[in-house]
Amino acid sequence: MAPTNVGGLGLVAEDVHIGRQAPEPLTLEGIRTRRAKAGKLDAPTASYSDSDMFKAPQSFKKPLAKRWDHLLSPESAARKPCVLKQAAKHLKKPGLVSLGGGLPSSDNFPFESLSMQVPTPANKFSQHASDLKEVTIGKHDVRDGVGEGVLDLSIALNYGQSIGSAQLLRWVTEHTELVHDPAIADWRCALTIGSTGSLEAAYRMFGDRARGDGILTEEYSFSTALETAAPLGLRVFGIPMDEQGLLPDKMDELLTGWDEEARGGARRPRVLYTVPSGQNPTGATQSEERRREVYRVCQKHDVFIFEDEPYYFLQMQPYQEGGSGKSDTTAQSSSTTTTATKPHGESVNGSNGDADVEAFMRTLIPSLLSMDTDGRVLRHDSFSKVVVPGSRVGWVTGSEQVIERYIRHAECCSQGPSGFSQAVLYKLLDEEWGHDGYLRWLMHLRDEYAGRRDAILGACERFLPGELWLKVDHTRHPHASDKSLLELEEEIFDSCIERGVLACRGSWFRAEHDRPLSGAVLPHDVRGGVGGADGGGD
Amino acid sequence: MAPTNVGGLGLVAEDVHIGRQAPEPLTLEGIRTRRAKAGKLDAPTASYSDSDMFKAPQSFKKPLAKRWDHLLSPESAARKPCVLKQAAKHLKKPGLVSLGGGLPSSDNFPFESLSMQVPTPANKFSQHASDLKEVTIGKHDVRDGVGEGVLDLSIALNYGQSIGSAQLLRWVTEHTELVHDPAIADWRCALTIGSTGSLEAAYRMFGDRARGDGILTEEYSFSTALETAAPLGLRVFGIPMDEQGLLPDKMDELLTGWDEEARGGARRPRVLYTVPSGQNPTGATQSEERRREVYRVCQKHDVFIFEDEPYYFLQMQPYQEGGSGKSDTTAQSSSTTTTATKPHGESVNGSNGDADVEAFMRTLIPSLLSMDTDGRVLRHDSFSKVVVPGSRVGWVTGSEQVIERYIRHAECCSQGPSGFSQAVLYKLLDEEWGHDGYLRWLMHLRDEYAGRRDAILGACERFLPGELWLKVDHTRHPHASDKSLLELEEEIFDSCIERGVLACRGSWFRAEHDRPLSGAVLPHDVRGGVGGADGGGD
Repeated sequence: MAPTNVGGLGLVAEDVHIGRQAPEPLTLEGIRTRRAKAGKLDAPTASYSDSDMFKAPQSFKKPLAKRWDHLLSPESAARKPCVLKQAAKHLKKPGLVSLGGGLPSSDNFPFESLSMQVPTPANKFSQHASDLKEVTIGKHDVRDGVGEGVLDLSIALNYGQSIGSAQLLRWVTEHTELVHDPAIADWRCALTIGSTGSLEAAYRMFGDRARGDGILTEEYSFSTALETAAPLGLRVFGIPMDEQGLLPDKMDELLTGWDEEARGGARRPRVLYTVPSGQNPTGATQSEERRREVYRVCQKHDVFIFEDEPYYFLQMQPYQEGGSGKSDTTAQSSSTTTTATKPHGESVNGSNGDADVEAFMRTLIPSLLSMDTDGRVLRHDSFSKVVVPGSRVGWVTGSEQVIERYIRHAECCSQGPSGFSQAVLYKLLDEEWGHDGYLRWLMHLRDEYAGRRDAILGACERFLPGELWLKVDHTRHPHASDKSLLELEEEIFDSCIERGVLACRGSWFRAEHDRPLSGAVLPHDVRGGVGGADGGGD
Repeated sequence: MAPTNVGGLGLVAEDVHIGRQAPEPLTLEGIRTRRAKAGKLDAPTASYSDSDMFKAPQSFKKPLAKRWDHLLSPESAARKPCVLKQAAKHLKKPGLVSLGGGLPSSDNFPFESLSMQVPTPANKFSQHASDLKEVTIGKHDVRDGVGEGVLDLSIALNYGQSIGSAQLLRWVTEHTELVHDPAIADWRCALTIGSTGSLEAAYRMFGDRARGDGILTEEYSFSTALETAAPLGLRVFGIPMDEQGLLPDKMDELLTGWDEEARGGARRPRVLYTVPSGQNPTGATQSEERRREVYRVCQKHDVFIFEDEPYYFLQMQPYQEGGSGKSDTTAQSSSTTTTATKPHGESVNGSNGDADVEAFMRTLIPSLLSMDTDGRVLRHDSFSKVVVPGSRVGWVTGSEQVIERYIRHAECCSQGPSGFSQAVLYKLLDEEWGHDGYLRWLMHLRDEYAGRRDAILGACERFLPGELWLKVDHTRHPHASDKSLLELEEEIFDSCIERGVLACRGSWFRAEHDRPLSGAVLPHDVRGGVGGADGGGD
């Protein structure tokens, strides 16, 4: 039997081990079966939860992650559990009189209900007013037994655990298992306030200024990720790239020959920050083989990996001249999304209705997380690019040790994501869409973005010279001799804005800002990539 | 004229300086007048904004804050503006084609509208179904001119600036000015993800492990605040207290005689963390005179102040034996909250309708922020105790320099609070309740909590011995000779839980965990205080 009725401590280990007897396949149907067996989730205010409560039994048969004590910063190693969050776990005891940590009474919350109008898979996510569905979450739905829901405003809007609510953690854990099937037994998830926040925490968990720690990344990397590392005193080192992103042999070379003295006292970097899909700003996507090579080099040099994947589900087929970049699977899906769905992800058509969704998942390049037999990956997922940026909710996945350190950090910082965001996301993703509905949404969204990409590339084909890539020969600029490259770039940037186009300056994305500039602003072709230079890691 | 139609850069300085000609009083009516003059706020997606756009003209006549460069940490001093957030300010240019920072298209946001049922001042905040009002925020209300609102889901749920949306920043700025009237010209606010997050940022802005920095606080202090400081390597030093909280002369003594060597290399602390109202865990509230003395000592030793005030509006009249602890003003207010209100805080009865609200504000002990002529206070406000903890929204107020450093930090960490939370709070606090409605809510809430306090103290009077305070004589514990005080405390804590009562362990709140324990767990009487040991600073 799978873990049941969690929400307090103590039920986990036994239930989970019994589960080893009867592994179920990692399918949408498998999740439905597991949920049905587990019964209704009982997770009142500030309940303790962890991913082990929601993972498939076969997960636990995998090898355990390595330990990372030798890489953790003194700051992270020193963190202890937050006593008030720990004490909150006792609240589940029936009849307990709490003179402890103060939870404001939900009687005084000035929100009786929250409703939203959302598109549905049954209506192909049409946003026409008549195709929308109104979904409501009340203050005391759970206590009053309104609907099937297991989260209400009295729970979501009170203090919670920093890992996030059990209700949304369950969804995120199941989704992660379905899509990535992590390779270690002791993987876990934690909700975050978005990937910029979780990356900042990760830097502090593994990086220490006084130790001379550094970060490896693509030679052109997400500007905010670079800006997050710099004030912490973490040096950043760029790895040369090709159209598939960072070059593993170059990384190997860099680390093999590392000379601390020549690097001004910088210790050999022990962390890689990478955006494997739709890398920012180059748009490069690592192939499966490339990812395996990167992982092998990280193993060889004992490098820990921060995998930042905001665009994972926006992997598109390469652009075809004349348009139509939709993938076969996606195109196929469009005609089958009429499959009606019911709450809790139960498909009316049963498991047959899952075929297109499961085919979609098979088109996705496997993540580093999925290959990670050592537990050396901390993956950062985000709803920003695929639901809304304003939820400020994402999640991290990694080994139990690393996730536990992350939660200790969050307890003394963000205290977990917004309860409004959690309530809305739970209601939409879990109760309304279910896992299959969400995956259909992602297929739909990929189509939308592929259509937009095709439109702009089609326009470029029509109105611009044959080569899309504009390369500016700065040596012919009138001020080439008396102004620096950065000044010239700024002038070009400013005159673009004057003439009505906002661009990004290539220098923003240089991993090593202090290295002398070469001529080219960005050396790689972005065709066929996803997204724009627009913000991996948030 | 007050600042008008902000939302892009550049309009601030001129508009504001013109305003110096015609100062308006800091009243609810004054805010209404200013808003009416300013016209509709125009603040589309990711707009730049700052508090100067919303402050009363007379604010700018005050002296400027001191500079704090000598106290800022190397981490904070090294922060530069986030280039993508900076670039977003260009989006306001009409017709601009953005190839820059990527904002997902709101066409793909799966939320067409969000509605909530809320209590209203007109119905005395009754939560009976028929007394509630339904308030809706649509995706394109602003573009489509739906209602009077200036924020919609297309704006709130997209990326924004880390300071928060202009719409909610305006409300917070006006509220802060109304309640605290800060003493410097260049004060500003920034939205936060709650006070635990903003306190963590503040510690990092002013504290540096390598410099041997420390923090001063009450000898018993909020446990999470202590737990936040410890892993950063910041030593915490406790100041003796009486029933009004920390003793300024003891603080003076401590700092005057500071011996770095005797303190194991710890630098003389340059930061005070204090909870002036309803201090956690003692419940002590500093009188106005006590606050002035604390401030003077901080000036004398150039100490910067983190003022953490989650309970500011829950200041209650002392408990009277036999109950009825409601303050005169509050009691009076209950009979006058029938004054009908309209959106944007316009009272139907005009300024006369504001009298009880303004009387309520006068009963509040002035904050340290209100006395701060140097700009040495960073005040942390939170909606956790007075609206809902789950919004994970609060705000900080301080000098322009300090708030700017805070925003630079937030850009590479939280990226500002949840858009769902901001949308809901804006809709409730600004459009629906207005400033007067919110203050009436606070009066109402203070009554609610005073009633609860009276009930428990009444029960104590009736069922417990004359002295409420239980003091455990640990020397008479059977294990007094062979167990440590902490072990005894843990045993007592555990047996309380076994018997159905969750308490807080006094040791959690000791500022100096490594100092040998005396006998008493908590030395002060909590009667007449506010709240419980329940979480200042979040």
